[in-house]
Amino acid sequence: MAQRFQTLKGFRDFFPAECAARNYVFDVWRRIARRYGFVEYEGPILEPTDLYRKKSGDEIVGQLFCFQDKGDRDVSMRPELTPTLARMAAAKEREFKKPLRWFSIGQFFRYEKHQKGRGREFYQFNCDILGETSPLADAELMALSIDLMRELGFTKEDFRIRVSDRNAWVSFATDKGVSDGQITDFLQIVDKMERTPKEKTEELLGNLGLTLSDIEGFIASGAEASPALKEVLSNLEARGFAEYVEVDLSIVRGLAYYTGAVFEIFDIGKGMRAVAGGGRYDQLVGLIGGVDMAACGFAMGDMVITDLIRETERPNQLLEVAEAFASGVDVSIVIADPEKQGEAAGVVQQLRESGLRVIAPFSPAKIGKQFQAAEQAGAKLAIVIGGEYPELTVKRLEDRTESTVDVSGLSEAVAGLLSS
Amino acid sequence: MAQRFQTLKGFRDFFPAECAARNYVFDVWRRIARRYGFVEYEGPILEPTDLYRKKSGDEIVGQLFCFQDKGDRDVSMRPELTPTLARMAAAKEREFKKPLRWFSIGQFFRYEKHQKGRGREFYQFNCDILGETSPLADAELMALSIDLMRELGFTKEDFRIRVSDRNAWVSFATDKGVSDGQITDFLQIVDKMERTPKEKTEELLGNLGLTLSDIEGFIASGAEASPALKEVLSNLEARGFAEYVEVDLSIVRGLAYYTGAVFEIFDIGKGMRAVAGGGRYDQLVGLIGGVDMAACGFAMGDMVITDLIRETERPNQLLEVAEAFASGVDVSIVIADPEKQGEAAGVVQQLRESGLRVIAPFSPAKIGKQFQAAEQAGAKLAIVIGGEYPELTVKRLEDRTESTVDVSGLSEAVAGLLSS
Repeated sequence: MAQRFQTLKGFRDFFPAECAARNYVFDVWRRIARRYGFVEYEGPILEPTDLYRKKSGDEIVGQLFCFQDKGDRDVSMRPELTPTLARMAAAKEREFKKPLRWFSIGQFFRYEKHQKGRGREFYQFNCDILGETSPLADAELMALSIDLMRELGFTKEDFRIRVSDRNAWVSFATDKGVSDGQITDFLQIVDKMERTPKEKTEELLGNLGLTLSDIEGFIASGAEASPALKEVLSNLEARGFAEYVEVDLSIVRGLAYYTGAVFEIFDIGKGMRAVAGGGRYDQLVGLIGGVDMAACGFAMGDMVITDLIRETERPNQLLEVAEAFASGVDVSIVIADPEKQGEAAGVVQQLRESGLRVIAPFSPAKIGKQFQAAEQAGAKLAIVIGGEYPELTVKRLEDRTESTVDVSGLSEAVAGLLSS
Repeated sequence: MAQRFQTLKGFRDFFPAECAARNYVFDVWRRIARRYGFVEYEGPILEPTDLYRKKSGDEIVGQLFCFQDKGDRDVSMRPELTPTLARMAAAKEREFKKPLRWFSIGQFFRYEKHQKGRGREFYQFNCDILGETSPLADAELMALSIDLMRELGFTKEDFRIRVSDRNAWVSFATDKGVSDGQITDFLQIVDKMERTPKEKTEELLGNLGLTLSDIEGFIASGAEASPALKEVLSNLEARGFAEYVEVDLSIVRGLAYYTGAVFEIFDIGKGMRAVAGGGRYDQLVGLIGGVDMAACGFAMGDMVITDLIRETERPNQLLEVAEAFASGVDVSIVIADPEKQGEAAGVVQQLRESGLRVIAPFSPAKIGKQFQAAEQAGAKLAIVIGGEYPELTVKRLEDRTESTVDVSGLSEAVAGLLSS
């Protein structure tokens, strides 16, 4: 027996139904991004490993699909897009008017434990505004992420956007006497507070001269603690989005490079999963590309959101529509007289040139079998080509009504039947 | 100064204009494939290296981006899709009605010398029919490849499809006494004939008991040599495609796994480049997946076709339209009164909810600058929000005509102006 091959652990095969669902999510990402005036770009899937070391330090290498290529370069399959974006934006900085509104849809790779909602490969939507310091750019990204969720069929019963401000934390800590060199440690403590025993947090804060009640007091102050957040909130409110927004200063987001507003889209159902997240990172383009450029952005992966669509009662319908659409055809040809294969080829071509999705049998088969194949292909119409050619029978499969059409008027007749 | 990173050799950055051109080609691939009733699928970018060894032998490894992953698996970034397709189709063979009409658009990787039209990374359109032995399936793929070229703007002045039949060569060689074990060597000789000195070819053929004039005589016999090709040709003629087709038995296509009709789309301009190619491979699904399934397919890469579009006078226009489309917005907001930032946010949201592509400034700027930004963004309309709110001024940038609209009737007025 032949050797059977398996898909690598953490990697996915996209059979047609899964591919249609994937494309449905891609289409929503792309449509909403364009509505916000964003343009699409893409970078390489393979990059020098140093690009990721520069941003995230050596620890990142443990999670990378990295290797030496045949030219002895130390390369990695990309785990994220932001370093590539920083490289690209810096390289052609002068060619583009600021602010840049850029989005991308691509695949990413992380060597980590394979578990639900987390593969070793995933698609991600990345959306960034570069060259703009105004908090209204942060608000624009938050609004975009809210509109993504709404377009995917979710409502305020399903999700919230939690917003915070790293900069407000830095001001707070500095006012309390935390030194510049200790700020990152401080933010790590706050970030891990929820998952750390209270005594341990007290102890760590104590080392920096702070108490837990200082922190709790700051969190309770909410948007008052951050002028940027106040501007963001009033802008989201003007868009009619207040009901989706929660200020939650306990959100810090672990990544060391955030410098201002940060946010996460949260599933408020049982899962309490983060669906998307991002924030302001004004230093990174300079660090990677050597050109100072303010920046903010966010990313949404395909796995959690697709799980969420499948699990949620309401938007499942959209997914089913997408799946049915991607597999259906408009017309299936039934060849009643095998001598009419050539005429059938002409009819098929005529219909396809009018933009319709058309299939025809490759081998002779009984008429009943051909009608069965038409139904299985999701065809709306079957067109029977037989001895009466150029007269054709058009059958609407939904209600089995029939009509007779001359081949010269076929495209028009079919367009009429498909739109009725 | 910060370290500057470079794109790896043979890999591409897709800045917005290049990404729009890429997406334009993807859209044509997808649209035509759907018109032919094909459904989209996708496989993993990383596969076990053995999958490619099984199909192509050990030599292939020299051209792969292959490595040991952190779990000591011998893995490769995929150089092609056919082995993955064979694995997938065999794995779920019973779930799908035959024939399968499947297409895919994805990225592939080969470690080879970087040169024009050939990178270490490329996108490829793969289109296959599985579970069908009729030559009409081969004809369907050829027709699809012709329609791709036409949809991309090419005419019979630009390209031909050259068709041949490996099976006819095998019959010919067998009749001439070439043994089964020598057939592959024989096909290699024919495949390389054009690039090999005549004496050398004579010598190699002599070893198999053949002469050059035997071969030339066979090539001259054309479609008469192959019942399958005769059926293919008559089918393509019935579709109105005769003018694109040339029978050319000298085409063998090097790949050892072809078993029937083979074809290539050729640029007939100066370049004489192969743009796409494929054929019948009835043994491969059995070899890889352990399930016997007839199959034929073809692939088109993005690099040669995109070069060809750029170089050809006629279809360049299409590409420009695509590029302009991807970067343009419908409406750019001009905020004449900075106090009206909130009202502007509401207007932006209203227009986006009607599906329009809208941008607004994030920071206060002079009105002239804002109009300039609107033009640079390719906006069709500028909407001025000032002290007269809820009265707005809508300016058509093409001809600078202005009208005044109340915010309550804005979406309707804008839809009218954009469609006129």
